[in-house]
Formats: sequence, structure tokens, C-alpha cells
Amino acid sequence: MKKCDIGLIGLAVMGENLALNMESKGFSVAVYNRTYEKVERFISGRAAGKNFVGCASVEDLVSALSRPRKVMMMIKAGQAVDDMIDRLIPLLDSGDVIIDGGNSHFPDTARRTAYCESKGLLYIGTGVSGGEEGALLGPSMMPGGSPAAWQTVKPIFTAVCAKAPDGTPCCDWVGEGGAGHFVKMVHNGIEYGDMELICEAYGLMRDYLGMTADEMHRVFADWNTRELDSYLIGITADILSYRDTDGAPLVDKILDTAGQKGTGKWTAIASLDAGVPLTLIAEAVYARSLSAMKDERVAASKVFPRTPAELCVDRDAFLADLFSALYASKIVSYAQGFALMRAAAAEYGWNLNYGGIALMWRGGCIIRSAFLGRIKEAYDRNPSLSNLLLDGYFTEAVKNAESGWRRTCAAAVTAGLPVPAMTTALGWFDGYRSERLTANLLQAQRDYFGAHTYERTDMPRGEFFHTDWTGHGGDTASSQYNA
Amino acid sequence: MKKCDIGLIGLAVMGENLALNMESKGFSVAVYNRTYEKVERFISGRAAGKNFVGCASVEDLVSALSRPRKVMMMIKAGQAVDDMIDRLIPLLDSGDVIIDGGNSHFPDTARRTAYCESKGLLYIGTGVSGGEEGALLGPSMMPGGSPAAWQTVKPIFTAVCAKAPDGTPCCDWVGEGGAGHFVKMVHNGIEYGDMELICEAYGLMRDYLGMTADEMHRVFADWNTRELDSYLIGITADILSYRDTDGAPLVDKILDTAGQKGTGKWTAIASLDAGVPLTLIAEAVYARSLSAMKDERVAASKVFPRTPAELCVDRDAFLADLFSALYASKIVSYAQGFALMRAAAAEYGWNLNYGGIALMWRGGCIIRSAFLGRIKEAYDRNPSLSNLLLDGYFTEAVKNAESGWRRTCAAAVTAGLPVPAMTTALGWFDGYRSERLTANLLQAQRDYFGAHTYERTDMPRGEFFHTDWTGHGGDTASSQYNA
Repeated sequence: MKKCDIGLIGLAVMGENLALNMESKGFSVAVYNRTYEKVERFISGRAAGKNFVGCASVEDLVSALSRPRKVMMMIKAGQAVDDMIDRLIPLLDSGDVIIDGGNSHFPDTARRTAYCESKGLLYIGTGVSGGEEGALLGPSMMPGGSPAAWQTVKPIFTAVCAKAPDGTPCCDWVGEGGAGHFVKMVHNGIEYGDMELICEAYGLMRDYLGMTADEMHRVFADWNTRELDSYLIGITADILSYRDTDGAPLVDKILDTAGQKGTGKWTAIASLDAGVPLTLIAEAVYARSLSAMKDERVAASKVFPRTPAELCVDRDAFLADLFSALYASKIVSYAQGFALMRAAAAEYGWNLNYGGIALMWRGGCIIRSAFLGRIKEAYDRNPSLSNLLLDGYFTEAVKNAESGWRRTCAAAVTAGLPVPAMTTALGWFDGYRSERLTANLLQAQRDYFGAHTYERTDMPRGEFFHTDWTGHGGDTASSQYNA
Repeated sequence: MKKCDIGLIGLAVMGENLALNMESKGFSVAVYNRTYEKVERFISGRAAGKNFVGCASVEDLVSALSRPRKVMMMIKAGQAVDDMIDRLIPLLDSGDVIIDGGNSHFPDTARRTAYCESKGLLYIGTGVSGGEEGALLGPSMMPGGSPAAWQTVKPIFTAVCAKAPDGTPCCDWVGEGGAGHFVKMVHNGIEYGDMELICEAYGLMRDYLGMTADEMHRVFADWNTRELDSYLIGITADILSYRDTDGAPLVDKILDTAGQKGTGKWTAIASLDAGVPLTLIAEAVYARSLSAMKDERVAASKVFPRTPAELCVDRDAFLADLFSALYASKIVSYAQGFALMRAAAAEYGWNLNYGGIALMWRGGCIIRSAFLGRIKEAYDRNPSLSNLLLDGYFTEAVKNAESGWRRTCAAAVTAGLPVPAMTTALGWFDGYRSERLTANLLQAQRDYFGAHTYERTDMPRGEFFHTDWTGHGGDTASSQYNA
């Protein structure tokens, strides 16, 4: 029997669809799942008559593969991945590649890459984005790990992945160790931000303008033909027009408590660790947490009822401002996300190709959009761009959007409707473009109570001064107290 | 020779001052420092003629102590603490207590407590707040670790700590394992938030109202006699009146780049891990990071210059609103911080006394304030209060402040001045008191692209539904894709 091109472990929705995708591109796939019933159901169902080999054990799977063997895990992130690696190692030989296509945390991937390499194997941790449909029809793929493994998997990955409008595969080598999963993590954080921004726009339409689902559908459908053209805006338009069996908009019957599975949180934590302000994604994560506190919110709504503002606003003008607010905030979110990747590249020694990353996200994944094509162009113009806002295209875009963005935030703040992502984006922008912030007072406070010392505007950077502000402090410098 | 009551390791500013504080309360103190010169300088300097024993080695220090021995480390958090514990263990006997008074991360303290207990010793990790002056004159102390150690150290801790206005010691047992350092971490996070809020108020006075340092001094001095009466408002007033040698306000010559040492960051990370929206402290941490990007900000200020708004505002009315904004935001920050402690108590099995924690912070520490007395009263009224805002006193306070808070945020947003902490507090408030948020759309999106399922408002909680939104999705439920 002819050996298979690749083995795939884990037949949940993502694994199943990715396997079908690979087979449809001409690759033969051996599949294994912890419960064999799932393998049987798949082989006799969606895989019937196709080029698959169903395996009852990991040993069967490995022996069904051509060399160098490529085994891709599509299983739950965490201990299960470590366990599977330990089952695979004794079955594999030098040059074989273990691939993790789940949402593993990037430090785990870095550790596993080193571990597998120490055993003579190669390892890839790859982001796979696009949900169930993307996995089937072409996901965005962000592989990192052992550089020597890339050429081995490249033909399969670039065949199955999504393609940008110009035909370029939305998959390229990201970097060593955990680089692929880091970039996928940032992708997911940005996805959290994009979704929150859309929800905030929806909230102002629904609760400020009092629009119906049909009216909102038309606005999002229109926005989807302009700068905001993107998968998430498109599905929002779809959702708003979807009717329940009784003819009423289904969206109105869905409970307003959001779930999360951790990758947005990881992105925010990574930014705190790196000292990079990633305020919009952090607010998006917190907004999900707040939404989950449904019972507390209901109780608080009785204590602090919102007084609806008298509405004397031109709807079309307000919607134009709202478009600007969403667009400018989105630019800020991506600027913050790319700044985080720059910091990580410096810390971990990755040589990240920022234009290439934008291109990988251009198609297939949840955040795919025309906008990412603009980001690709910005990095083509200047691969070492320090911040996205300083690219001419985005500078102009923000300047044009600025007044509408401000009016939207001021209106929401005044009306008592929460737009935490839009306001934090504006706050970041106003801080980022401030030559002089207020941290001089903060440094004075830290020196006052903790002898932390400060720098002066009239002296060279790197010289530190301490003042005995009260006239009765000591002159022992702080080396221990943290504040 | 009579044995000493306690041993203290580490003579940086905090250790030195805490040792002097202990001695002044009648305790004899053996001191040791890694570099012996520091011990000699201390003994012949500030300690001259007092009840100290200078030790040249850890062995000398331990043998100078009465039983049960109490050895307090005031050294740099991290590996140095583990190393010192390993040096102390063979020198100590059952019932002896090792105390860590540094800013250790709470999981480290939990681990060290278990480790020392496994060696037959007792361990305490205690928050010590108040900076150099607090350490000397009476800090706030937050001990946790081995419960059996509390009675041993209680006489010393309650003697040296600060006292609330009614004479109660600002020190009490917090809980097992890392509880003391957790509460200290939250204290430091709240300190970050308080400082950021003051800086934002200062920024609006300076850059919106165009006030001089002297004028601002008078406002903060006035605020310090009202609901905002606190150490940090007081030192802000002091700082604003401090003159450099040339007679100009020193604050104007300090560089606006803030430092940080990690405890604010830890608090934000803990909140992300716990799923508790701690938006204000996170924004305060990010604001410090943004301030540190001085060169990038200067460059961006040329690209996006701020157009100063035509100022047609009544200064007194604006300052009254600003007071409300600062006060209401501060209430939100503490409400968020106490919510984080509630979540941690549930996770780690601590029986935290929230009123007692407010009382520990009432004096001695950096965030000491009359306000904390009000929080103590709120938890006296209802020890299981679910959120600070739902206490009658704070409900009224927020209601009274709300309109001024909104006007301040709207003005700042319109004028292009960053007030990220004030606006995020308002956004959280508006979300918290919303019976119905917009996460219904977000859940629809997650179900659309990832088959994540959703709950319905017209069906019991805990029942999950999936819709085939496009008419061509599969019916395989997601158990793997994370978003």
C-alpha cells in the first residue's frame, strides 16, 4: 500500500476540515483520533471514497506515512500535546516532523521545539486561523519552530492555505521556536479587538440611535464595501439579517454573555510583560469578562438606571462619525499589535517580516480584510516602520477620521453607553502624540515616597536625581522598594 | 549576652528604616547585610548607641536570636530570597519563623511557605508599604503564610506598624500561603491607579486650564481637606509647591517618563487570569509604558500636532467636575480591586476580611486615605458586599459625581488630552450598570465562525444552541478552536 503524505491526529471540527482540505489538494492523509468511533464515522462519512487511511493507533498512523514523516496534531492545547509528543518520539526518526496546529501558548511551543530537536526530530508549532470554514476551504497558517522543517511541510501548507487576492499563499515561515504561535496569539488578540469594536458600533446604533436589526444590517453591509471591508463586518451584516423561526431577528434572542478561551488574555499578558501598551485588546478581554457578570449587571442596573438622553442627532451624520471611530480605533489596535510583535522580535531574536504577517492574515483567517492589504503596503514602503500610524496612508486615514472619532466617544460618554475600546484607542492616540505627558508628576511622587530618583529635562538622559522633598528624608537611595 | 528579639537581613533603605523602627519600639535587633561595610556603617551611624547587634554572617545572626527565632529578609525579590531561605534552613529549628518583607510575587510566597513548612519551619510573606518614611515611622503590614507563625510575630508587627486614626494597628493576619503578598500586590496596583488618576487631573489643569504649579498646589491642598483626603493628594500638593534652586517649580523640570518595577503589572495579569475586569489599573500600567516611549512620542507629536481648543470654560465649574471625575474613578478602581481580591479568595480558599484589609491600608501605606475608612465602614455594614458601588454611601457618591465625571471625560476627549483611567472607569461603570450589553452579537459571531454555541434569553441558562448561519456549515460542534 502506498504511504500517506501526512498524518493528522484529532478529528474535532478543525482537524476534520483540515484533513479534507489536504486531501482535496491531492495529498493522502492518515487520520487518528483518541476515540476510534470518530475515525470510523469520518472514514465512512465525509471521507468516503477519498484518499484517507483511518488508523486505530498512533503506531498505525506513523507506519502509514512516507518519509520524512509529517504528523500534525489538531488536539486540545495543553498537557495533551506534551503527552502526544512523548508517544510520538519513540516512533519517529531523525528528520521527521511533529506539527502542532492547535492554539498552544508560545512559550510551550518554544519549549517543545527545543525538546523535539534534542531528540533528533523537527518541530513546528503553527497558528491555523479561519474557524471551521477556513480549515476546510483555506486557513491562514503561521508556522514557526525548527527552520529545517519548513521545506518539508511547505508544499502541503502552501497548497491548503488561503490565498490573498493576488494569489499569494497566506502562509509563510514566521520564525524559530514559538514565533508562529506568538503571531497567531497576536492575531487572536486583534480578533478580540475587532469584535469588540464592532459590538460597540452595534451598541451605539441599537441603544443610542434606536435602529432595528434590518437597519443595522444595511449599515454594516455598506461599510463592508468601504475601508472596513472584512470578514467580521460581513458576517455581522449576515447575522443582523438572520431571522429566527418566528421571523424576529435571532441576534435579539441571544444572551449577552461572552465566552473566551484564553488567547486574547495571553496577548494582553504578553503586552504587560513586554511593557507595550496594548490597551484596546486588553479592554476587549475585560469587556468579555464584564459581559459574563450578567447577574451582577442586572442588579446594578436597578441601582444605577441609565437615563436615556434626549436624541437630537442627525442619524446619517452620526453614522458617518461612527464609521470614523471604528476605523481609527481599528488602526490603533493594529498599530498596538504590530508594536507588540516588534518588541517580541527584539526580545526573542526573531526576524519577523511584518508585511509578510499582514499578508498571511490577508485571507483565510477571521480578521481577513482589505485593511491588511494596506498594512502590507505600508511595510513594503518601509519594512522597519516604527509605528503603523507613521505610514503616510494611515497618518492621513487617522487625521481624516479624528474629528468623527472624538464626537462619537464624547457622545457615548455623555449618553452613558460603554465604548471602552474606542475611548482607550483615542486615549492611547492622544498620549502617543503627546510630546509632554504628565509622568513628570508621577516620577516626583515616586521620588517623594520611595527615593526612586528622576531624570531632568535640562540634564542629559541617564543622569538620575533625588530630592529630599520634605526636608527630613534620608539620603539612602532606594534599591528595594517597588512601586 | 542577651539574645535579640528579631534578626533583619538586608540594610537597603527599607530594611534600615524598619530595623530602626523596631528598635524604637523596644525590640533588640540583630542585623546582617551581604556587604559587611553596610553593617558597620549602620552600627556606627544611625544605629549608634542603640539596641542593635551587627552580624558578619548569617550564622552569627541566627545565633544572636532568642527562640523561637524570627528572621526577616528585606532583600530583593526573586532568586535572592530562595537562596537566603536555603542558607537559613539548616541553621533554624522547628517553630522558628522566616519572614519575607520584600515585594515577592504571591505564587512564590505560596511555594516558599509550603517548602519551609515541609522543613519543619514556619514562613511569613508580608507586604510592607509606606516607602522609606513608612518603614521608619510605621508601615502598613500585610502578613500571610503559616498561620501558626502569626502569634510569634504579632507583638513586633503590631508595635511597629502604622495606626489608624482610632489607634487600631494597620496590620492583621491576611491568610494562608501567598495571601499577604497578594493583598500587597493589589495595594500596589491600586497605588498605580491612584497615581495615574492624579496625573490625569494634573494634566487637565496644566494643559486644558493652563494653570500654574502654584495654582494647582492650592487646588490639591483644598482637595486634601475633602473626600479625597489622602497621602498621595497631600504629597502632590507638596510637590507642586516645591521650588528648584532657581525659584522655578521643580516639577516642570522632571522628565515625563515613568518607571515601574512590576507589581502593578502583576496585578493586571492576575486580573486577566481571574477574569475580573480591572481596567483602571491596567490602563495605569500601560500609561507608564507609553510615557517611557519618549522618543517615539516626540516624533509622533510632529506628525499629529494637537490643536489647542478655544477655551471657553468656567474654571471653578471645571475644577468641580474634575474633582467628581477623580473621586468617582477612584471609587471604581477600588471596587475593581476588591472584586479581584474576592475572586482570588474564592480561587485560593482564603477567608479574606475586606474591612480588615481596608483598615490595614488606612494608615502607613502609600494609598492611605480617609476614603479607606469609608470602605471599612461599608464592609462593616455588609461583610459580604458583592461590589463596593452597591454600598449606600458609595452609591450616593457615584450618583452625585456622575454628571461632572461625564463632562470631564467628554471635555478631555474633545480637547485631545489623554485621560485613559478616567474614561475606562466610566466605561466600566456604564457596562457594569447595563442590564443588556452587546455580547449577544459577539456570541453570534463566535457561533458563526467557530460553532461556539450560545445561550438564549428565552431559554434556561446552561442550554446551548448552534445556528448554521450560512446554510452551508457542518454540524460538528467546536471543541478545539479557540477564539
